[in-house]
Amino acid sequence: MNIEVCYTPQAYSLFHNPNSIVVVIDILRATSAITTAFYNGVVKMIPVATIEEAKAYKEQGYLVAAERNGEIVEGFDLGNSPFGYMNTKVKGKTIAITTTNGTQAIEAAREAQKILIGSFLNMDVIIDYLRKEKKDVLFICAGWKNKFNLEDTLFAGAIAHDLVYKYDFTSGCDSTIAAMHLYKIAKHDLYGFLKDSSHRQRLAKLDLERDIKYCLTPNQCPVIPMMEGKYLVKA
Amino acid sequence: MNIEVCYTPQAYSLFHNPNSIVVVIDILRATSAITTAFYNGVVKMIPVATIEEAKAYKEQGYLVAAERNGEIVEGFDLGNSPFGYMNTKVKGKTIAITTTNGTQAIEAAREAQKILIGSFLNMDVIIDYLRKEKKDVLFICAGWKNKFNLEDTLFAGAIAHDLVYKYDFTSGCDSTIAAMHLYKIAKHDLYGFLKDSSHRQRLAKLDLERDIKYCLTPNQCPVIPMMEGKYLVKA
Repeated sequence: MNIEVCYTPQAYSLFHNPNSIVVVIDILRATSAITTAFYNGVVKMIPVATIEEAKAYKEQGYLVAAERNGEIVEGFDLGNSPFGYMNTKVKGKTIAITTTNGTQAIEAAREAQKILIGSFLNMDVIIDYLRKEKKDVLFICAGWKNKFNLEDTLFAGAIAHDLVYKYDFTSGCDSTIAAMHLYKIAKHDLYGFLKDSSHRQRLAKLDLERDIKYCLTPNQCPVIPMMEGKYLVKA
Repeated sequence: MNIEVCYTPQAYSLFHNPNSIVVVIDILRATSAITTAFYNGVVKMIPVATIEEAKAYKEQGYLVAAERNGEIVEGFDLGNSPFGYMNTKVKGKTIAITTTNGTQAIEAAREAQKILIGSFLNMDVIIDYLRKEKKDVLFICAGWKNKFNLEDTLFAGAIAHDLVYKYDFTSGCDSTIAAMHLYKIAKHDLYGFLKDSSHRQRLAKLDLERDIKYCLTPNQCPVIPMMEGKYLVKA
């Protein structure tokens, strides 16, 4: 069971492996928001790549989330702040969602046999799932507009570290090794480690420190969103 | 003065900045070999992307280096082992060169205003050059077939670390921050740190431990190869 980490959606084709379970990661904030949504009773989500597709769902009467550059796109119900999904109005609903990076990463991995949504919020249940499945694992980091980012890499490193040192998985590529090293430095203070990161600074300008702290706190939402056809559902 | 690190040639277009000095890095072994060649008296090198172009230079009577997957391509004079360039037969010569990753990275950066060849072998002279130029710096890691690799990242981290902490450059992206962190962990034992890296294992199979040790030993060849038109020359 081999683990690879693909740092950006752009690079996915180099990593595609029909035997891998893919874990999509966009810590700040799409996959954290999606995990939170399912934990709060959302039944299905429909990730779409473009604003146009999101609009089409809106016109059909769906609740629709659309975020670009950290903010809710005008005319939509939700963005990618996890706090938007912590209320009763989402319970039982199907929500279409498009975000700057996260839904692009899901789109890139469409051919994968299985796609899970990972975040610090569901970290331990993801580890548990992967160790039981005993298959190759490919992490796809959403990054920021196809550039590497730290927070997604740290999460990949956290999971890889457990799978390698506790459950006999192997770290098959240098990006996995680097992710594990970075996680080892950062693990006692993820928030402090990310102080200078580009994305955190971007979000700080939007006054989203509360979101960042929440997204970096492990295991608050023990639920695994998973792709099934064009939908995300609870695994 | 901002520093960015592009982990693979594939991603170059996302990082292109007309104001940046580009440093191309392929520690194992293209940029180490090129640095060694100039230190041993080579006058010009012509980096080419394909074996076909290399053949054309061979037919014109040039000394030609061609490496694919770690080995000298049949019919050529040299590969990318630095030891191949430590002899009097290269002195005063112009050599055409194509390698699996390194020359592809040079090719990707063609539009840059200035391209330097970096390796641990010329580390301090590169730092000196960059701090005096006071311009943005973009490191392009050759990686391995467009995947991230550790050794190129460590070198970018080493230079970035000095420029940021001693000379007031800024680390403009998460990949720079990650590279500096990785260098800080690895710096006291680069060879040991890279023990499990994919590329080192690849080369170990070819019995190239001597090459690896040499390529990781700083400042043996204080010379800077630089692109000038289609040629590499001594800066």
